[in-house]
Amino acid sequence: MTRNDARRSGGQEQRILTTFRWVPEPVRGLVRDVRVRWALEEAGLSYSEHLIGFEDQDTAQYRHLQPFGQVPVYRDGELELFESGAIVLHIASQSAALMPHDEAGRLRTLTWMFAALNTVEPPVAMLVELDFFSAGEAWARERRPALVERALKRLGELDRELEGRDYFAGQFTVADILMTTVLRYLRNTDFVSRFPAVDAYFKRCNARPAAIKALADHMAVFDAPVEA
Amino acid sequence: MTRNDARRSGGQEQRILTTFRWVPEPVRGLVRDVRVRWALEEAGLSYSEHLIGFEDQDTAQYRHLQPFGQVPVYRDGELELFESGAIVLHIASQSAALMPHDEAGRLRTLTWMFAALNTVEPPVAMLVELDFFSAGEAWARERRPALVERALKRLGELDRELEGRDYFAGQFTVADILMTTVLRYLRNTDFVSRFPAVDAYFKRCNARPAAIKALADHMAVFDAPVEA
Repeated sequence: MTRNDARRSGGQEQRILTTFRWVPEPVRGLVRDVRVRWALEEAGLSYSEHLIGFEDQDTAQYRHLQPFGQVPVYRDGELELFESGAIVLHIASQSAALMPHDEAGRLRTLTWMFAALNTVEPPVAMLVELDFFSAGEAWARERRPALVERALKRLGELDRELEGRDYFAGQFTVADILMTTVLRYLRNTDFVSRFPAVDAYFKRCNARPAAIKALADHMAVFDAPVEA
Repeated sequence: MTRNDARRSGGQEQRILTTFRWVPEPVRGLVRDVRVRWALEEAGLSYSEHLIGFEDQDTAQYRHLQPFGQVPVYRDGELELFESGAIVLHIASQSAALMPHDEAGRLRTLTWMFAALNTVEPPVAMLVELDFFSAGEAWARERRPALVERALKRLGELDRELEGRDYFAGQFTVADILMTTVLRYLRNTDFVSRFPAVDAYFKRCNARPAAIKALADHMAVFDAPVEA
């Protein structure tokens, strides 16, 4: 079975992750399928890949699965879902390795999942996107200082929260997967290293065997020979 | 019992929503406590308000509850949580009026909750924030067309998805609360009305009695006499 035709081969694999077979070098390691791979590794759940190209994003067939043309898409048996946040929450509901069973721990995990995606990611993504795509433009030079200030403010708030804590919800949870992948967007800056508790947390999460395996599997796709 | 001291009076009310007692006119109706009020109304769950001022946002006491100094914060008995997405998901887990019980419907609801907050809200918020806070600046005039284009692209994608559907997950769910409150950010534009299916959906959701009650209760706070 080749890596990108698990679905067509009869779907022996229960779980199928759809993502890109190629992305430009600057965003390798940052595509959101990494979040899903990492969650599956932590939960000890196997999966197949279904790889698509940018040319597939706008087809009616793909838009039927993913109305915005984005990756990842995830299939679990008969269930099909998208949005990396929804996918990893679904996986977390299947594993105590990703979400505590007690109500208080579960709600703390949910709180920090949404904090990662809705409070920390937007300002971080605005800055990183500016640096990736608009660095040379006049408006970007004028705008950048305010975005830097906003991203650093959030990192400072995370730093205070992480003082004396290893993870956001007591134990390692799916919220830490989301927060770590958001912090990775800042890899071309020294911002994370300016905040000791965030820096230690970031290294702690990235050092997990499941994090290393997920990232390696993500990167391996881009080294594989392109199939006819 | 006055409206802002439910907690101090001994907490007869199980559920307490913390939000601002005052915000500037341009953002009234758009603060995220509206999402929580709406979810509680749909679920038929009563609650008290705990009102704070901007001057409370940076106190150590408030930051202990909400590390980013934002509203809303929500208390349900002994459980305390923040992030409007997490709060409404918690409320949805208590009511079939907000989330189907079958697995496929539940996952479709989660998918569209995250789509609202992580795929639609960021581009919409970038545009609206520019119009609210930076309209006169040179960089904003240069930047705005790309943000308009991006917001309209998302609305077009929602429009195709909503053709022939009343709601994103079959029945009305908590995902529609989030999507409607995101679309409200665009109220100073004609963008929603340019997309027939989105426009009809937006009106359909806003016409729900729970939506009307939630918005009225949110607005009533700003009309109430300030207490000593």
